[in-house]
Amino acid sequence: MKEIAKLLGYRKDVRVIDATMRDGGLVNDFRFDDEFVRALYETNIRAGVDYMELGYRASKELFDVNRYGKWKFCDDEDILDVIGDNGEKKVKLAVMADVGRCDYRTDIRPRTESPVDLIRVATYINTIPAAIDMIEDAKSKGYEVSCNLMAISSAQEGDLRVALDMLGQTPVDVIYIVDSFGALYPEQLARLCALFMEFADHYSKTVGMHAHNNQQLAFANTIEAVGDGVNWLDATYYGMGRGAGNCPMENLLGLLKNPKYSVYPVIKFIENYMWKLKDEGVVWGYDLQYLLTGIFNQHPRSAIAFTKEKRRDYTEYYKELTSQE
Amino acid sequence: MKEIAKLLGYRKDVRVIDATMRDGGLVNDFRFDDEFVRALYETNIRAGVDYMELGYRASKELFDVNRYGKWKFCDDEDILDVIGDNGEKKVKLAVMADVGRCDYRTDIRPRTESPVDLIRVATYINTIPAAIDMIEDAKSKGYEVSCNLMAISSAQEGDLRVALDMLGQTPVDVIYIVDSFGALYPEQLARLCALFMEFADHYSKTVGMHAHNNQQLAFANTIEAVGDGVNWLDATYYGMGRGAGNCPMENLLGLLKNPKYSVYPVIKFIENYMWKLKDEGVVWGYDLQYLLTGIFNQHPRSAIAFTKEKRRDYTEYYKELTSQE
Repeated sequence: MKEIAKLLGYRKDVRVIDATMRDGGLVNDFRFDDEFVRALYETNIRAGVDYMELGYRASKELFDVNRYGKWKFCDDEDILDVIGDNGEKKVKLAVMADVGRCDYRTDIRPRTESPVDLIRVATYINTIPAAIDMIEDAKSKGYEVSCNLMAISSAQEGDLRVALDMLGQTPVDVIYIVDSFGALYPEQLARLCALFMEFADHYSKTVGMHAHNNQQLAFANTIEAVGDGVNWLDATYYGMGRGAGNCPMENLLGLLKNPKYSVYPVIKFIENYMWKLKDEGVVWGYDLQYLLTGIFNQHPRSAIAFTKEKRRDYTEYYKELTSQE
Repeated sequence: MKEIAKLLGYRKDVRVIDATMRDGGLVNDFRFDDEFVRALYETNIRAGVDYMELGYRASKELFDVNRYGKWKFCDDEDILDVIGDNGEKKVKLAVMADVGRCDYRTDIRPRTESPVDLIRVATYINTIPAAIDMIEDAKSKGYEVSCNLMAISSAQEGDLRVALDMLGQTPVDVIYIVDSFGALYPEQLARLCALFMEFADHYSKTVGMHAHNNQQLAFANTIEAVGDGVNWLDATYYGMGRGAGNCPMENLLGLLKNPKYSVYPVIKFIENYMWKLKDEGVVWGYDLQYLLTGIFNQHPRSAIAFTKEKRRDYTEYYKELTSQE
């Protein structure tokens, strides 16, 4: 049964990953100023967060460096410049590398030459061989490596078993369930967790959870996952992330009972920095249009456009969504 | 195991109760205009909602009729005047009667003389004898009757067993779990559901769930409850309700697979009426201050005041909350 049911205790293998700058960067084109980044870094240390994801390591061939903030690319130099290299790190650093959007052979240096600790390889289920190449590359360079399986709610179980078996045979450390569409109900997630755990146990891997809040279930699904044996938990400050956003860090640290975690610094950071983003017009979070793409298990891109256009004609949007099916 | 896990099927005993005007009335002093009420009534019929709670039947000795809209009192005449008495009703009508705040002997007439079908008796665990008197009064007058056990997250299990045994021996039809503080995690709720179901099975009662969204878990906890055998599910349009609000109707009808339910009319109503309320300055919904009272298992009244004063000094508020403990 669910281990988290022992709510007053905790499991020491649980890790919390702050994905604010990476998933949140998707709604402000990665334009976080240096003060924000330094404060977030210090806050993560005080809050006991285990990993901090800084953004993407995106290809400069594919993406215009003038169109995005520097955390879309996460150059080692920029990381060192802003965060510094102050001896013993209390929170490990991560960047995400998307299949097909990262020049990993050249842009990811050996770990000894980089402040980054963890490479998060993001892939859809149909690009697993490319992901495996990236995993092996990063692993051979000395990094911790996770593989984030996106859009899992639209994958076939048969395909998923093949993918998990292939990934199990790589040197990847952590395999992530990514509910990109925020479409999963906790009971469906429980089945997926059981499947991932089956392969993870067999191949001695760890499983992670990355939730989206389309149906107001990001936190609930993260609770479900940790209760089902998932150890790596993604969260973002104030839920900042693409569309409906993610599991809020403040909710997650309110749940976890390991005394290393502390919610107060998170509250303080939100008060000082996150409201400012909202006031500047950066938009994220639950709303009806995201609920609908969640219910219909669709990519939220049309809901993001609906939001951007400040539309409120939900019934028209409902018809657009259902006629696409 | 969880019955709702068979997500593609449904359980025919499930009932959906629209509590928008009652719990939502707490944030606009029950000032819903007649057009709103008629449209909501029609929408509930189209959406397949089973019961519609119109408000409180509050004592006019205790509450000033000029300070509140008429749905604080729900006079039979007002109900008939707005909704009419159009033969066969497709959605049953309910009012809430609070222990100590309702002159039930005089203000609740025999059912044959009233458009109301269901009396919802709301009580804390320390006023069960008074609640039982109200239950027996309403039952003797011919109504369906539920008893809503409020602030359940701060009740002792020993007391709860006594209360459930006392209620089991009354003619009450439905016993509700009410997470007034939005403090429960799904696993804690699962234990409470098991306890309520134990007495409900013994005494042939039905169990209901009324959730609050302080931790963004109102919908998740409603899913948990229905999976644990709870049949009566409260929801409100756009989650409208006191403080962080309730389980949103649109989320719940997106989950339930009984073809009698339809989410489209709900979306339409929100587009036409709920946004108007928001634009007029009526405030409800999840925010950090409600998360904190949820985490600390406290009544949200201080968070409601924080919201009203448009405060954003969350860290000060955090200290106020924790120093009260």
